[in-house]
Amino acid sequence: MKHLLTLDNLPRAGLEALLDRAQAFADGADAREALAGVAVCTLFFEPSTRTRLSFQLAAQRLGAYVLNFDASTSSATKGETDLDTFRTIEAMGVRGFVVRHKVDGAVAALAAAAKPGVALLNAGDGRSAHPTQGLLDMLTLRQAKGKDFAKLKVLIVGDVKHSRVARSDLHALRALGAGEIRVCGPASLLPEDGTLQGCVATQDFDAALEGVDAVMMLRIQRERMEDGLIASLDDYHRDYGLTASRLRRAAPDAVVMHPGPMNRGVEITDDVADGPQSLILRQVGNGVAVRMAALEALLGN
Amino acid sequence: MKHLLTLDNLPRAGLEALLDRAQAFADGADAREALAGVAVCTLFFEPSTRTRLSFQLAAQRLGAYVLNFDASTSSATKGETDLDTFRTIEAMGVRGFVVRHKVDGAVAALAAAAKPGVALLNAGDGRSAHPTQGLLDMLTLRQAKGKDFAKLKVLIVGDVKHSRVARSDLHALRALGAGEIRVCGPASLLPEDGTLQGCVATQDFDAALEGVDAVMMLRIQRERMEDGLIASLDDYHRDYGLTASRLRRAAPDAVVMHPGPMNRGVEITDDVADGPQSLILRQVGNGVAVRMAALEALLGN
Amino acid sequence: MKHLLTLDNLPRAGLEALLDRAQAFADGADAREALAGVAVCTLFFEPSTRTRLSFQLAAQRLGAYVLNFDASTSSATKGETDLDTFRTIEAMGVRGFVVRHKVDGAVAALAAAAKPGVALLNAGDGRSAHPTQGLLDMLTLRQAKGKDFAKLKVLIVGDVKHSRVARSDLHALRALGAGEIRVCGPASLLPEDGTLQGCVATQDFDAALEGVDAVMMLRIQRERMEDGLIASLDDYHRDYGLTASRLRRAAPDAVVMHPGPMNRGVEITDDVADGPQSLILRQVGNGVAVRMAALEALLGN
Repeated sequence: MKHLLTLDNLPRAGLEALLDRAQAFADGADAREALAGVAVCTLFFEPSTRTRLSFQLAAQRLGAYVLNFDASTSSATKGETDLDTFRTIEAMGVRGFVVRHKVDGAVAALAAAAKPGVALLNAGDGRSAHPTQGLLDMLTLRQAKGKDFAKLKVLIVGDVKHSRVARSDLHALRALGAGEIRVCGPASLLPEDGTLQGCVATQDFDAALEGVDAVMMLRIQRERMEDGLIASLDDYHRDYGLTASRLRRAAPDAVVMHPGPMNRGVEITDDVADGPQSLILRQVGNGVAVRMAALEALLGN
Repeated sequence: MKHLLTLDNLPRAGLEALLDRAQAFADGADAREALAGVAVCTLFFEPSTRTRLSFQLAAQRLGAYVLNFDASTSSATKGETDLDTFRTIEAMGVRGFVVRHKVDGAVAALAAAAKPGVALLNAGDGRSAHPTQGLLDMLTLRQAKGKDFAKLKVLIVGDVKHSRVARSDLHALRALGAGEIRVCGPASLLPEDGTLQGCVATQDFDAALEGVDAVMMLRIQRERMEDGLIASLDDYHRDYGLTASRLRRAAPDAVVMHPGPMNRGVEITDDVADGPQSLILRQVGNGVAVRMAALEALLGN
Repeated sequence: MKHLLTLDNLPRAGLEALLDRAQAFADGADAREALAGVAVCTLFFEPSTRTRLSFQLAAQRLGAYVLNFDASTSSATKGETDLDTFRTIEAMGVRGFVVRHKVDGAVAALAAAAKPGVALLNAGDGRSAHPTQGLLDMLTLRQAKGKDFAKLKVLIVGDVKHSRVARSDLHALRALGAGEIRVCGPASLLPEDGTLQGCVATQDFDAALEGVDAVMMLRIQRERMEDGLIASLDDYHRDYGLTASRLRRAAPDAVVMHPGPMNRGVEITDDVADGPQSLILRQVGNGVAVRMAALEALLGN
């Protein structure tokens, strides 16, 4: 593995090795010299403070030098192409790049131009992929439900069409052999391409919840309302908001996940978000662990 | 002490222990491994570069990992509640939070929600408290005048009503048993609650200055003029600006302090700010030392 | 050397010693404890992400604590004078300052006020100087052409009048005894003061290129068009854009340099920028090395 661009092409063994190492970090394994002398740059063409902080902390815990370039402010690049911006920082001797971009495939395009020994980690590109989010979701699921995904029924709910989180979760769930993958949302927010291959798709949230072991909620963007893809946030909440009473349709020990930041009262209610079945903050903690594992795998000696 | 939210409830012995340790740091004590492996995040819901830099340097000098989250830019939090923002970063494994907030009590509210082992340091909330500023002011006074505060006459001048600096200074001066505390400013900028308990309050700056050992000037915000609380900056300077001739009313070895940034020519003139009685830059240096002491006390092993 | 403000007053031996040390860093020399315990602050009154990143990485590789103050956003300084901002950070115990400023001489003015033991590195002031750019350009030339500059013909092309890069390059080329220095650009962009002393100046790009060993292109700012100093970017490209066919007029092994960021298709075409004679990315890598050398020389033990 030279870069981490998507989970789509990652074999099950490689994915599980990453999760095993991430679990070790979650358990407190120390590797504070693993990236000693290595420079890592967060290069965000689209802003995201949470993901950036998580990667920064992961890189620091491995002993790396950490730089930050917020390329989303126009003055930062003075009309330079993204490729020139990347090549310039690469030429400084930076070996690891954590890149977020609005455009599908933009991170892969930069990776294709990278010098040998330089690794890119996709921190989210367009609607395509957010592989470390997929990894942290799998680690969280594994901690709660064990390593045998074949017996699991997992439900993903919301704006799957525009969600790189959902796509990376789907890639990983398939690779790990999840028993049943259900996907639920309004027709306008379900993708019509091959994304849902092998999934059971439905618009009926109550039916979809029946007996599932895990409910993975997605953030609904307000822009979807402006785009006419949903009628209103109230309507969305009525049809696709996860409430305590709805959650009772799932398996009694079902777990609830959300990539954050949450729209409380829209896609999820407070009592569910903060309730005993919620793993939402556990996901965040696992984020640092999987990013340490990914950085170490790509850049460690 | 689990958090440092205010100096109001800090016993004299605890306060003096912090000052003693800060003095050791000011004298060059090395503790570069004290927070090794500990992550500290500056979480500013209101911007302040100076205070943030001072805390960042203090945390780095103790060997901590340092993260920065400028939550004052709206896109950073995407409509998340402050509590969710805090809990998310806490879930990453961050153990120390340096928090500034516009709203009184907001930092205490986050501290109440913190997990065991997590410490919050209030870097200024509303008009309530700015405890490390109070500490650094006391350290500066102590260096200049000795540890026996009972023989000191201290004057605080300006917009006490809206000043968290003044409140933390008052808390600390009382705890350390200052001999006499005078407070001076226009009636519109003097608080009417219990803030001035035990102080001598006056609107007459010249009278207030007579024989004091220390003059602590406050920054006047231009907004006070827009709010109609002061007539003009010229008027304010005439009545409450510290000039060299006015300073002669104080004790001959009186010291002058200001939390910065200064409005030169308004609350203080150049010759006083840069004169031999000014400790203003000394205060800044002591700021790093007291923040090291506070971080170590809360987060050290 | 207490500060690095300009290359104008630097003797040849000092300049060559810096380049020798920078070469060692470019070759992988390790000095990760050279600035242990030393705090360095990038203090930019004019934004520049590339130069800031390069200095940050250089300081980190030497083991320094690194702070960043973007003083170009107005709220950061709250109406404070530049001198007060500088003195405040200096009072925190910061010993190294990397300063960029719009105004000629502004960095030197701050340096004149610095305490003993505190060093300023000019990261670009007005049109005056950008000494580390000059150094990295010389290092790059030396790597390509050897240490004997007496046999070199060097051409600088573009907006020399407004360019601190050109001025620092001219200082360094003279100090190192370059055989011939040519300068080329439209009359409106050539300086009329003593800047071009000892240079051959011309408006004819084709003639200027004949037989040169190095072509140093400058970035053309779009503002020059708005100011009426150039007719259009198309016209500028026609007259002063470096194309592959034009480059054939230079010596067969001539090298091409550019300080970045490039306006591709304006002052330089893609095939030249990315071609075999281009040293543009090598320059960027050398930037970290010369900044390490400069920081170590000024702040190391």
